[in-house]
Amino acid sequence: MSLPFTTFSKDYLDEIKTSITKYVTKTPVLSNKIINSICGAEIFFKCENFQKSGSFKFRAATNAVLNLDSAQKKNGVITHSSGNFAQALSLASQAQNITAHIVMPKNAPEFKKRAVLQCNNNLVECQSTIIDREKISKKIQDKYDLTFIHPSNNLNVILGNSTVVSELLEDHTDLDYIICPIGGGGLISGSALACEAYSSSCEVIGAEPTNVNDAYRSLQSKQIEYNSTTDTLADGLRTNLGDINFPIILKYVNTIICIDEIEIINAMKLIYDKLDMLIEPSSAVAFAAVLKEKEKFKGKKIGVIISGGNVENNNLPF
Amino acid sequence: MSLPFTTFSKDYLDEIKTSITKYVTKTPVLSNKIINSICGAEIFFKCENFQKSGSFKFRAATNAVLNLDSAQKKNGVITHSSGNFAQALSLASQAQNITAHIVMPKNAPEFKKRAVLQCNNNLVECQSTIIDREKISKKIQDKYDLTFIHPSNNLNVILGNSTVVSELLEDHTDLDYIICPIGGGGLISGSALACEAYSSSCEVIGAEPTNVNDAYRSLQSKQIEYNSTTDTLADGLRTNLGDINFPIILKYVNTIICIDEIEIINAMKLIYDKLDMLIEPSSAVAFAAVLKEKEKFKGKKIGVIISGGNVENNNLPF
Repeated sequence: MSLPFTTFSKDYLDEIKTSITKYVTKTPVLSNKIINSICGAEIFFKCENFQKSGSFKFRAATNAVLNLDSAQKKNGVITHSSGNFAQALSLASQAQNITAHIVMPKNAPEFKKRAVLQCNNNLVECQSTIIDREKISKKIQDKYDLTFIHPSNNLNVILGNSTVVSELLEDHTDLDYIICPIGGGGLISGSALACEAYSSSCEVIGAEPTNVNDAYRSLQSKQIEYNSTTDTLADGLRTNLGDINFPIILKYVNTIICIDEIEIINAMKLIYDKLDMLIEPSSAVAFAAVLKEKEKFKGKKIGVIISGGNVENNNLPF
Repeated sequence: MSLPFTTFSKDYLDEIKTSITKYVTKTPVLSNKIINSICGAEIFFKCENFQKSGSFKFRAATNAVLNLDSAQKKNGVITHSSGNFAQALSLASQAQNITAHIVMPKNAPEFKKRAVLQCNNNLVECQSTIIDREKISKKIQDKYDLTFIHPSNNLNVILGNSTVVSELLEDHTDLDYIICPIGGGGLISGSALACEAYSSSCEVIGAEPTNVNDAYRSLQSKQIEYNSTTDTLADGLRTNLGDINFPIILKYVNTIICIDEIEIINAMKLIYDKLDMLIEPSSAVAFAAVLKEKEKFKGKKIGVIISGGNVENNNLPF
């Protein structure tokens, strides 16, 4: 697969960052001495759990809706998502006075549905199969002439996501690695583009649950692989790569570390104990990669993207 | 009581801020749409729970040890504290290669003792009475010719604390109020000095548990009052005002809001639910003041100082 576009320049990614600046939160970067000591490395947590809507996806959604033309803005947008992108697109659309329709599987967590409903009345429930999601989305899209925005396989979404790393590398220029969780591939592809543009030496590494390691296998086979199960706590990482983000990942990402379920829980708990932050399991996957590969990361400076914090506080896995 | 010194200029407080910059974390300021909507105001949480040693007291301790003369640095320092200042002074002294002796009551939380022991071998336990604390401190101080650093009633401690608000007002120039918890008076006096120097319109307001509202009563009687009980969850706020910080509070603070125990728990839980952060009860007191006095704060921009996050995660009050 070849890249459908050239590498983006720092200037271009800076423009993207500037254009969404007034809507998104510049999220804090946290460090903790005890965690550094446990890891034997310097960790810089980029805390997208403090982003609006509770995850980095607000950057993606904001960039996507800002890039609609006036007719598209007037008609509105639609997506299907079981979680963070649903909340992100609802909130980002509300901020721009754009109507958003959200298709969510019936079995999505109730607290995520409530979060969507707080700023959006157009929530439609579907069966939890991807076929039903797509069928219902298409029906509503056609009925109202909406623009479909895919949660991860959309260039404006990817470019919106790139701003996580643009911000991080602007303040921490000397990172050796940046570790991203991989689900649909939107975050890591955006991160890789920014890393390429902002740093000559930093490398983006992926972290993925072993149980749904389609990206790990795709990198090996050089074609998009699929998962036969969605059996992971990291509910944000159950999705698959797409034809827009995969070529970017293939070009810029060399390493994906596979993380077992117990390692996800341990990483989540360590963040909770030492940083007093509750992060979602999908976020913990990136930190778990450092804990798993201590030798590789020894003495290095590592940006770890905490992708989101949307977790049900009364239903923790530890 | 009159002020033993003149008001500090912005330039002077800027110098303090600059001198500790490379040691302390510039802590993030967080906002949350749902919390704003619940409060009917715009809240800017200054998150000292992400400060080194887990509380603002690291600023105080750092400024205090940096201001020692060379003989004092050589001999070392001592304090007595049941919590955050013990950790802060241990860590700040370690960073400057200064020996710190810490006197802690036997019944201080084990996790706080462990945190001290991680960077300090000179931990001495005492009975939990203030008389025993002071007696044992004095004995060790005399034996090693140490400099005693009081956790709150010390000018360099107060000036170190002022940097919380210097940072906050630098980034958020248009705040109407800043709400601080009051225990020993070190944070609110530093905050008031910074507010006076950095803003012509912002007002510092105190928040104190009703059960130990010595500061509230002191402000009314214009003399230092004492508590007959230490019966509050907010363990960091059980202490009393001192002769150095009280005149500052008397001059610059007009309002102290008293907070009941259930209100502390509710505020702590709301931060946990909406921001996914665990903060200590002493921190929650300041936020509880906004929730309690919604009419007063309606439509205002309010800085709320989250003073620390040192809480035992498996022993939450909710």
